[in-house]
Amino acid sequence: MSMESSVETPSGMVGHTADRLCDSILTKAAPVCVGLDPVVDRLPAGLSPQSDSLEDAASAIESFSIGILDAIMPHVGVVKFQSACFERYGPSGVAALHRCMMAARDRNLVTILDSKRGDIGISASHYAAASGQMGGDWTTINGWLGEDGITPFIEDGAGAFVLVRTSNPSGETIQNQPLKDGRTVAQAMAELVSGLSEPTVGSRGYGLLGAVVGATHPAELESFRSWLPHSILLMPGYGAQGGTAEGLKPCFDSTGLGGLVTASRSVIYAFGSETDWMSSVGQAAALLADEVGKVAGLRS
Amino acid sequence: MSMESSVETPSGMVGHTADRLCDSILTKAAPVCVGLDPVVDRLPAGLSPQSDSLEDAASAIESFSIGILDAIMPHVGVVKFQSACFERYGPSGVAALHRCMMAARDRNLVTILDSKRGDIGISASHYAAASGQMGGDWTTINGWLGEDGITPFIEDGAGAFVLVRTSNPSGETIQNQPLKDGRTVAQAMAELVSGLSEPTVGSRGYGLLGAVVGATHPAELESFRSWLPHSILLMPGYGAQGGTAEGLKPCFDSTGLGGLVTASRSVIYAFGSETDWMSSVGQAAALLADEVGKVAGLRS
Repeated sequence: MSMESSVETPSGMVGHTADRLCDSILTKAAPVCVGLDPVVDRLPAGLSPQSDSLEDAASAIESFSIGILDAIMPHVGVVKFQSACFERYGPSGVAALHRCMMAARDRNLVTILDSKRGDIGISASHYAAASGQMGGDWTTINGWLGEDGITPFIEDGAGAFVLVRTSNPSGETIQNQPLKDGRTVAQAMAELVSGLSEPTVGSRGYGLLGAVVGATHPAELESFRSWLPHSILLMPGYGAQGGTAEGLKPCFDSTGLGGLVTASRSVIYAFGSETDWMSSVGQAAALLADEVGKVAGLRS
Repeated sequence: MSMESSVETPSGMVGHTADRLCDSILTKAAPVCVGLDPVVDRLPAGLSPQSDSLEDAASAIESFSIGILDAIMPHVGVVKFQSACFERYGPSGVAALHRCMMAARDRNLVTILDSKRGDIGISASHYAAASGQMGGDWTTINGWLGEDGITPFIEDGAGAFVLVRTSNPSGETIQNQPLKDGRTVAQAMAELVSGLSEPTVGSRGYGLLGAVVGATHPAELESFRSWLPHSILLMPGYGAQGGTAEGLKPCFDSTGLGGLVTASRSVIYAFGSETDWMSSVGQAAALLADEVGKVAGLRS
């Protein structure tokens, strides 16, 4: 599938989706993404829900999320929304998610819907359309179903990050199983993704299929980088889960592109009891951008 | 985790979730499930959306779905909702899904939310809670993330069907890779599921973790049955995708339990231009129940 540079994606954005992500990273000199995983019991004082109703909970995490967007936007160009945190509150939560993603769009942030969807055929196309309507430029997806479960998510020009090697403790149970041919299962997944991403490469060298690869295993990261030459690597696990800045180096190419470090709780809950919580969140985002921007060679 | 027989699940139902599913199968002598995958361009005459708006589309598939529930309930005790078909229409679609699942509950149908969710920790718990609130007794989930991504879905007594071996053409790319130890990747997934399901077994012999195994490969089905002795097998691919009744036999135990054949389009679109479309759908459900009920030994 060849990508027109003027293509309009289902989410209504114009341009090659991977190029737009790369451009956003370069503009901010920040190959990082802030993850929005809002939960009601960690909101700043004054933003707690008015009642126990789903509607009030959804409204509270929406206000918090909008505050986060305003706090981080000077420093970071990409934001990832954890769909589960919003779906938790039913249709009201989904409506809140939609408004938050549109608010991110209004702030010129590139959006990732972290919904880890995975289905085939028309159902996969429905999920892809749903992501676009929600305002997602990218969606995280699960590749267990193979190509049938992957390509529908990029058919209309949107981007998708496939879960290749996750950073959770039990991620290795299936993903690190050694295959008869000497590869691991995760390597087989990486090569599947790579083959499907290659024909969609844009002018910055990356295709519409990225890969989620945990930042907790530096040696592994280097291997996945080599198996996925055309994919932006979305890397959770930095900081909170033990990944270090130095370990990220192999993920970035000579132009500072190719990797996107995502951090959630360490940024969005970087406040104590102070009333000016947004300024603490902004500082945490600025620090993250600076640390990773330096490793990638985008900052000195 | 031991299951109290009087446990109340997050979806508000009382009793062991696998026992309730088994009882429903025995009551109807029908080890089958009708899949609701509604799309607007296949609705019966008279049910088409009033406009192109998401709200009208959601409303149209809701009316159709309620009609399907009424048509099939004399014959079938279990219904599976394809979440993608509803999410496609944004928050309105999600609200419609919620009402449809509650309507299924009102009709004493056991409900499966076919959303193929998969995440870890608090996010997985959020998805599990979301399924319960939607009215799902069971959820389909993706086990790529290992135990961390599976157990949160059954922690509160709900059930989950893990995608073990799917019936789509590219399902084999990852799932059928041969491991160094002689198993396939799907067998490793089956054994992971089996180990986690065993401690949750109820009085009918089945645990809270079922498995999705395509009905299109009879020899494989027999193997998966042996690897998953405590799991109800949810089997798509019967009829439309080439699975035959005889090939299903190994999935059922001596009491006729252990397997649940799911059919979607062959039932819900079993009508032509007739005005009494519900009666055609009811007949298709009755035929499915009869064919599979006989194979399971629940009907003569």
